[in-house]
Amino acid sequence: MYDNNQTMNPPADRSPVTVIGLGPMGRMLAAAFLQNGHPTTLWNRTKGKADELVSQGATVADTVADAVAASPLVIVCVLDYNAVYSILEYSAASLKGRTLVNLTSGSPDGARQMAAWAAKGGFNYLDGAIIVPAVGQPEASILYSGSENAYLTHQRTLMSLGGTSSYLSIDPGRAAAYDVALLDIFWTSMTGYIHALAIASAENITATDLVPYARKIIGMMPDIMVEFANQVDNSHYPGIESNLISTEAVMDNIIHASKARGIEVGVLIAAKNLVRQAIDLGYGKQDFSYLAELIRKPHDN
Amino acid sequence: MYDNNQTMNPPADRSPVTVIGLGPMGRMLAAAFLQNGHPTTLWNRTKGKADELVSQGATVADTVADAVAASPLVIVCVLDYNAVYSILEYSAASLKGRTLVNLTSGSPDGARQMAAWAAKGGFNYLDGAIIVPAVGQPEASILYSGSENAYLTHQRTLMSLGGTSSYLSIDPGRAAAYDVALLDIFWTSMTGYIHALAIASAENITATDLVPYARKIIGMMPDIMVEFANQVDNSHYPGIESNLISTEAVMDNIIHASKARGIEVGVLIAAKNLVRQAIDLGYGKQDFSYLAELIRKPHDN
Ligand SMILES: NC(=O)c1ccc[n+]([C@@H]2O[C@H](COP(=O)([O-])OP(=O)(O)OC[C@H]3O[C@@H](n4cnc5c(N)ncnc54)[C@H](OP(=O)(O)O)[C@@H]3O)[C@@H](O)[C@H]2O)c1
Ligand SMILES: NC(=O)c1ccc[n+]([C@@H]2O[C@H](COP(=O)([O-])OP(=O)(O)OC[C@H]3O[C@@H](n4cnc5c(N)ncnc54)[C@H](OP(=O)(O)O)[C@@H]3O)[C@@H](O)[C@H]2O)c1
Repeated sequence: MYDNNQTMNPPADRSPVTVIGLGPMGRMLAAAFLQNGHPTTLWNRTKGKADELVSQGATVADTVADAVAASPLVIVCVLDYNAVYSILEYSAASLKGRTLVNLTSGSPDGARQMAAWAAKGGFNYLDGAIIVPAVGQPEASILYSGSENAYLTHQRTLMSLGGTSSYLSIDPGRAAAYDVALLDIFWTSMTGYIHALAIASAENITATDLVPYARKIIGMMPDIMVEFANQVDNSHYPGIESNLISTEAVMDNIIHASKARGIEVGVLIAAKNLVRQAIDLGYGKQDFSYLAELIRKPHDN
Repeated sequence: MYDNNQTMNPPADRSPVTVIGLGPMGRMLAAAFLQNGHPTTLWNRTKGKADELVSQGATVADTVADAVAASPLVIVCVLDYNAVYSILEYSAASLKGRTLVNLTSGSPDGARQMAAWAAKGGFNYLDGAIIVPAVGQPEASILYSGSENAYLTHQRTLMSLGGTSSYLSIDPGRAAAYDVALLDIFWTSMTGYIHALAIASAENITATDLVPYARKIIGMMPDIMVEFANQVDNSHYPGIESNLISTEAVMDNIIHASKARGIEVGVLIAAKNLVRQAIDLGYGKQDFSYLAELIRKPHDN
């Protein structure tokens, strides 16, 4: 694995790039390529989304095949891998000899299957995951895995996306493995946050009132995550600062307070079920981090 | 509502304090009082937990009634409100005229009921929530609600716990309302993190490898939380940077990747159900923050 940082390796090339997919992310990618002087060709199912980028110098291709033919490097960033296939399935011939970089979020298996499809079609495949989507800015973080040759050939062009690019592994599923794990953290946390806003609102606390405290809570997470990571990697859950029994009591309070206000509690019930299972297995006095081990084991729910 | 900060109001008194409950949190509370020169009396169901604090100068009471009688200010911090009742129910008479500060996590209703119980018993009741448990340190944050008189009388003593004390409201349930909302964020996020570690491990990524990226993900949350808070307070979910359809696709990837490795997905399924309901109601192109509104409405699951 190695990282490239835009500050260290300023983009030096002006090679043409094709961007397929103009959702919020695709538009940011295309804008970054344009800003760095790459001739940029676009394709999107809904045409109107290209208008602003065209005014910034981008070219819109009429067909997917034309878009692919315009550049040695084709970036695709759409809703999901099914959308990738449905866009590209009739243009695999045009891709031959080129490189496809798929920045669409997917599963590790999905990425491996797509790499196999690319191999059959005779084009290079690099799977990518946009971890921090501050495209064009120093905080941006994009992970890549798959064809190392493709990465080495195109890394300078990809550095136009800013921040840090990391090439992880020749296994095309590696970037997606990180991606699903990190998206799990993000969207589960956001679900908790939104649920908290619903409780707050039911108790006449505005989101604006809650948010400074919510930031404090989130501010505690990095240190605890490091501590839990050590516990999980060492299968050692001492339960010194808090334990699963205490967490269950807290979850019961949240569930009780939600139900009292008619707020649904599906996520909390599912989380509490895991805690209860761990306690039933005798881990009540141990750390919450034990759950990482539990949920990898065969179980009932 | 007003805040007190230890740096601004250095503790000037040395009044005696009683601490009931010597879990991780009670021990930190007692240590902070001792460090600030308060004669500190302890009671805990399991006696041995007081030993280290006794070597630092604390006194252990034989009975709850003795512990309560030792100080005008009694702090209780145990597993849950049931434990508070079971410890104090036969000592309500000793509490008469004193102040009970309950730093145990509970629900808003639970706090209101306990305030009513205190009123009947003729003692002052202040409910509290330890939001940032860095007791004795500048980052500590404790919220209080209930008897304003009790807060004003004892605020200098309570400032020995460090950081910022905030008195929120005469409604005894207010601190607990913040507490459950904030604990919801914390424990739901931690559940997501632990689940992510399980996925990572199944993909041969160690927790230690994942954690630097996990920190980046968490680092993005504060800004997005502020944005979502504005959306929720204004019931306006424009869906410009991402939308519920895109989130559902991502959740499907996480669920798929988990199932492929035999990892349970109860929390994600529950979260996805909410997203699906929102899409079915026509909110697919709007922001995820719409869920805060959805889950306050009557619904099926
Ligand atoms: N938004 C973010 O903050 C963010 C951050 C990191 C990663 N990502 C990932 O980046 C990818 C793109 O996300 P996004 O937010 O830009 O967009 P999105 O909302 O996930 O997807 C919209 C894009 O997908 C296209 N699309 C959807 N279904 C299609 C189909 N069946 N056939 C052809 N095109 C189809 C849309 O075309 P139309 O315009 O014609 O509908 C549009 O270009 C996703 O995998 C997402 O998880 C997003
Ligand atoms: N730990 C943290 O990081 C943290 C942070 C913020 C807030 N809090 C809150 O602070 C409170 C205390 O947490 P904690 O982690 O210190 O401890 P805890 O593990 O939640 O609870 C342990 C304490 O409760 C007592 N206890 C439990 N059941 C009892 C019963 N039926 N009768 C009498 N005593 C009983 C225990 O006595 P024995 O020693 O005899 O078992 C011990 O003193 C909780 O409400 C927690 O949510 C904790």
